[in-house]
Parts: sequence; C-alpha cells; structure tokens
Amino acid sequence: MYIDAAGEQLIAENFDNELQPGQEVRFKQQIEFILEIDKLKHVLRKTILMDQSRRENSAEHSWHIALTVMVLSEYARDADIDFFRVMKILLVHDLIEIDAGDTYCHDEEGKKDQAIKERLAADRIFNILPSDQAKAFRDLWDEFEERKTPESRFANALDRVQPFLHNYFTSGKTWLENKIRSEQVISRMQPLDDGAPLLWRYVKSLIDDAVKKEILAG
Amino acid sequence: MYIDAAGEQLIAENFDNELQPGQEVRFKQQIEFILEIDKLKHVLRKTILMDQSRRENSAEHSWHIALTVMVLSEYARDADIDFFRVMKILLVHDLIEIDAGDTYCHDEEGKKDQAIKERLAADRIFNILPSDQAKAFRDLWDEFEERKTPESRFANALDRVQPFLHNYFTSGKTWLENKIRSEQVISRMQPLDDGAPLLWRYVKSLIDDAVKKEILAG
Repeated sequence: MYIDAAGEQLIAENFDNELQPGQEVRFKQQIEFILEIDKLKHVLRKTILMDQSRRENSAEHSWHIALTVMVLSEYARDADIDFFRVMKILLVHDLIEIDAGDTYCHDEEGKKDQAIKERLAADRIFNILPSDQAKAFRDLWDEFEERKTPESRFANALDRVQPFLHNYFTSGKTWLENKIRSEQVISRMQPLDDGAPLLWRYVKSLIDDAVKKEILAG
Repeated sequence: MYIDAAGEQLIAENFDNELQPGQEVRFKQQIEFILEIDKLKHVLRKTILMDQSRRENSAEHSWHIALTVMVLSEYARDADIDFFRVMKILLVHDLIEIDAGDTYCHDEEGKKDQAIKERLAADRIFNILPSDQAKAFRDLWDEFEERKTPESRFANALDRVQPFLHNYFTSGKTWLENKIRSEQVISRMQPLDDGAPLLWRYVKSLIDDAVKKEILAG
C-alpha cells in the first residue's frame, strides 16, 4: 500500500481499469519497491567523495560502479562475459544495506553478524517485489556474494576498485583515519586478480606508491 | 594525469609494464573519467528524497532509474527493446550536468540556454575517455535527448516517472514550493505515453488525485 506522510492512502481509484486482471497487485508491489529502495541514499559508506567534502552513500557508489562497467569492461579476465548481468548485479548488490547497513570492509568485528543481517535484509527487501522479480533480484545478489561466476568476479572487482581509487586519490584520508595497513588493503584487493588481473596489477602499484608516500601504513 | 589535492602526480612508475603498448594512455584516460564523474554526486536536483530530509543528487537519481529498468521493463511500449542499452542510457544521461547543472523541468527561463550548455559539457566530459568510448557515450546521450528509438523513449519515461513519484508521495512538497500547476505536470509527463503507456495512465490518475487532494494546483 502506498501511504503518504499523513497516513492517507494515495492510490487513485480509476487506476485499476487500465491493467490486466491480476496485474494491479503486481504493479503496486513494483511501485512500493521503487519507493522503498530510495532509502539506500541514506546509507553512508566510509569512502569519501573525491573532493573530500563528505562521505559517499551506497546509491551513489552503486551508480558509479555500474557505469564503470562501461569504461573498464575490456579488463575483465573472462572474454565471454554478460556485462548486462554485471551491471544488474552492481545496481542491486547493496540494497540489503537498507536494513543491514554498510559494513566497513576492514571492520572484522562488524563482519561477524554481517551475513545473518544481510540475509534477513534480502528476505524482506526483495520480497516487496512480485515473486518472480524477487527471485531474480535475490539470484543476482547471491551471485555477487558467492563470487563463482565470471560476471560476479568482475562485479566484485569493480566494487573494490572504486573505493580504493577514492582512498588513493584523496591522499589516503580514510586509510589514515581508520589506521589501515597495507596488508589489509592487499588482502581486500587481491581478489581483483580473479576478475580483472590488469586492474589488480595497477592497484598493487598504487598500494606500493601509497606506502612510499606514507598515505597508507606499510 | 592524476593529481592529488597537493598537486602531486600520483601514478606509480611500475604501472606501465603491465599493459599492452599504447594502452597506457587509454587506461589513464579511463581512470581520469572515473574520477571526474564523481562530481555528479554534487549536482542537486529539485526532487526531494522520500523521507523529505534533503534534495536528491543526479548520481542517486541515475542509480534509481537504472535499477527501475529491471522492475518496470514489462511496461515498455515496444516489445522488442534492448534493456541493456536503456540502462546504459540512464546511467550516462545526466553526466553533462557536471558542467551544465540540473535544469528544473519546469524552469522555462533556464531551459533557454540549456541545450548549448549541455552540448559544451558533453564535448568536454565524454572526451576525457578514449575516442571510441567517448563516441559510444556521446551516442547514448544523443539517443536519450532525441527520443526517437524505443530504448530512448522508455528511458525518458523512467527518467520522468521517478521524480513524479517522489513529488506525489511526498505530498507535493516540490510542486507546492515551486507553484507548479497540473497542466505543467501533464505536459511534462505526457511523453510517457510513447514509452510506457500504462505508466502514463497511472500517472494521469495520480495527477487527478493530487489536484483533488490539493497537493498540486489544478
């Protein structure tokens, strides 16, 4: 149901006529989902924007990396890859943070119950959709998490590269504030080698450089 | 070139070795583009978020509607549509706002030099990319603007539906603040009929309802 701030139901009555029988409920679920996911714009990540003015939110991050698919596709390890699915995976991959919040990749304590919180979130959020779409979205998210397909490996690579670039090109502000050491960054970034080996080589060289410049602890 | 806040060049030297000859310049252009487009996160739109806490930016908006492709694809007028291209169009369509700013859809004064400003912006921003990618991005943006293909018509429909839903479901706050009348909203939304006729019928019913509830001037 679509309820406005005053608790009033806002769907106009003449709307049913125009959809196929049975489609009205489906359409309402779809609109409800579209309204619900607006909340991802409130989930703040540790990453800061390039001009260092503020932290990034997960909707912005998702847009950035989905677009990056179009820029960096030639660096994917696997030649035969469905980039449409990569893009869909990336648009969807953080939706669970609406309930579960963003877990900082170097927060070992926070990671302990992350999986449970995220599964509960997936159960709730994707199921706002009609069941066929709920399953499609859940499958994309599961694929991302499992990192078994070429598509999900490339998606994971891009998901890690973007915040890394932000950290490096803002002189390591987030690394220094959170007392992150190079071995933590290496361990976080190493899986790039499975998805985009050239990007991994590039990132490795920037990690070395960051340590040399003391914007990342060695 | 990648320059940090202190004006220091930050590309590590051992990075060249790992790319094909000639690919280094290309890769630098791609990274520079990825860093540049971060600025879209600073471009504020008139639309407010569903919880009314603040205005939305164009990166968030682009993410929202790119994802909406996956939810509302069945309402596209044309059966044979390349939804991957729709998604790419939507991820790219607002990048020119980095230079040109967001022009409010009901700002007739602002629209006068909008086209010129946006073309100049497209010339600069897309050309940060290697020339083949610059052309691909420009083609997507031109396609969106021209609204001639089924893909661009559906993309335009989603681009208009999302802010409309925000306006309606936040009790017309932005409409009332900007003294918008229903005929302006109808004129803005009518092109939905070309891209997603069922969505247009839905929107029409909500416009009627909004007028009845006095959250939109009749």
